Amino acid sequence: MGKPVQFAVLGGGSWATAIVKMLCENVPRVLWYMRNEDSVSYIRKHGHNPNYLTDVEFEKDQLILTSDINKAVSGAEILIFAIPSAFLESELRKIEGNFADKIIFSAIKGIVPETGLIVGEHFHVHYGIPFANIGVITGPCHAEEVALERLSYLTIACDDQDKARRVAECLQSDYIRTKISDDIIGTEYAAMLKNIYALAAGIAHGLGYGDNFQSVLMSNSIREMDRYIKRVHKMKRNINNSAYLGDLLVTGYSTFSRNRMFGNMIGKGYTVKSAQMEMNMVAEGYYATKTAYELKSRFKKKVKSPIIDAVYEILYQKKSAKRIFRQLTENLD
Amino acid sequence: MGKPVQFAVLGGGSWATAIVKMLCENVPRVLWYMRNEDSVSYIRKHGHNPNYLTDVEFEKDQLILTSDINKAVSGAEILIFAIPSAFLESELRKIEGNFADKIIFSAIKGIVPETGLIVGEHFHVHYGIPFANIGVITGPCHAEEVALERLSYLTIACDDQDKARRVAECLQSDYIRTKISDDIIGTEYAAMLKNIYALAAGIAHGLGYGDNFQSVLMSNSIREMDRYIKRVHKMKRNINNSAYLGDLLVTGYSTFSRNRMFGNMIGKGYTVKSAQMEMNMVAEGYYATKTAYELKSRFKKKVKSPIIDAVYEILYQKKSAKRIFRQLTENLD
Repeated sequence: MGKPVQFAVLGGGSWATAIVKMLCENVPRVLWYMRNEDSVSYIRKHGHNPNYLTDVEFEKDQLILTSDINKAVSGAEILIFAIPSAFLESELRKIEGNFADKIIFSAIKGIVPETGLIVGEHFHVHYGIPFANIGVITGPCHAEEVALERLSYLTIACDDQDKARRVAECLQSDYIRTKISDDIIGTEYAAMLKNIYALAAGIAHGLGYGDNFQSVLMSNSIREMDRYIKRVHKMKRNINNSAYLGDLLVTGYSTFSRNRMFGNMIGKGYTVKSAQMEMNMVAEGYYATKTAYELKSRFKKKVKSPIIDAVYEILYQKKSAKRIFRQLTENLD
Repeated sequence: MGKPVQFAVLGGGSWATAIVKMLCENVPRVLWYMRNEDSVSYIRKHGHNPNYLTDVEFEKDQLILTSDINKAVSGAEILIFAIPSAFLESELRKIEGNFADKIIFSAIKGIVPETGLIVGEHFHVHYGIPFANIGVITGPCHAEEVALERLSYLTIACDDQDKARRVAECLQSDYIRTKISDDIIGTEYAAMLKNIYALAAGIAHGLGYGDNFQSVLMSNSIREMDRYIKRVHKMKRNINNSAYLGDLLVTGYSTFSRNRMFGNMIGKGYTVKSAQMEMNMVAEGYYATKTAYELKSRFKKKVKSPIIDAVYEILYQKKSAKRIFRQLTENLD
């Protein structure tokens, strides 16, 4: 495949497609891996993704497409992962040999189900990537609005601020502003926890609670997120920055969020199984709830997290959403 | 009118109607003043407000209705004002004699245009009401959802916590939870400033910015509100509590908010005058913008408030919304 390029994007979904688009504004060639060979052939021929953000037209000669993850990993210096967390580990297992010399940026919002770790920790613990070579790309950002070139803000976090800056510079454009951060743990946990709160917002909506309650729920969610992340990784951060509060709001208030949709079905009386079957997918917040709940018990100091607890009891202990939310409302303010 | 009752509600709009409804859940009789005599007669006859929250049915013998503000003031111990701030002073001037012995709770979100003061300060400075007898009733709360008995949370603020508690107890019910606070200045300023941010959200929407940007704008708004209120009245408060962040969100994300609607028209290219004519009213945020902007210049320490500044320049200096927002996006993160 010739000389390695700067970036490989791994993933074929809407967020991966949006990231490739952003990179194409700045770098001459982008290596793009996706599992599905038909999609690879389609994009090679037509210059757009057949399944996601289909309106985004690429310059075909800017893309190096492959359905072989090993080509992607060996062909680029910085690997941007945008594979749903539920499939990440099975993809990583396809990689032959060690890739600990790569720089890894995660654009994945969630927990790796096999290990219960956020993505950065997973790469560090299980693949030996040093934290200085691990970064996070976080929103608030619906991929659909990137496709429309509507102004969006990304936060690029890495312990090594030079690497954060380098990635940021290759993502920014007329319609993308970037900010760098050194809080990879906090931004990843925020991106994970916000899915639980979006799920809670969906349950509330499904149960018939209105906008007044939703705003109280979001106000309590950001305070709970702040308390929770402080336990995981205490550092100076303003939880109201876009990477935390902004990301919570864009998801919690979006009627397109899969987590919110899933929650809405639960609130309307679907079982977890029937909601998953109906949606033909598992919302990230479903796994995040279990991990966040179980992780709490390992904290040295207890954390008050009535919203996570309520969602856990509904999803994993099959308790009545109506009753649990009635109780929850007593614990919010 | 016999023995004074505990509460008089002053105002005939939707928020006044909602407050009367909440009180009627708890107290035997409520004195209700509104300027419009026809409405008074109508409610006496039909038991519901002809113009606002028309579905809310009152027990007629629970209401003591009057169109004479002096009867309302003399007939109750606690006066709850829910008159739009633009009309407050002209109503207060009708009051004969001194009412400095009354307890005043403001349910008004805004600035008194004649004095540029928030309502509590206006009562204190111009009517000699001691701060211990001044309180604030604040949301997040759309009156329409109170009418539907959808669960809502109110914050009742007063320096004298006993009075806050007493009012809170008379407002709470199955569908209303209350919280007390001693931050009358902060909650009032938050209620005023959030209208400016809702107006900004409307302008952004009118200009074609999407949900990603809105979440960044709200994230920046709450940080700006925090900085601003700290300058006005520094005390320990969590800006993410419902009375501040919740109130911002319920307004900023509501497509029914008059401030957001007004902003939307400005963003779409209406002049201030034509937007006001079209809406047949003046949005509270219009006055709030001028006051908040001018007040800044009196702060001892400067405050960074790019959103207030941008809205001011658009509304009062007739600058191009498109250009000013383009500049604003550079100052957000």
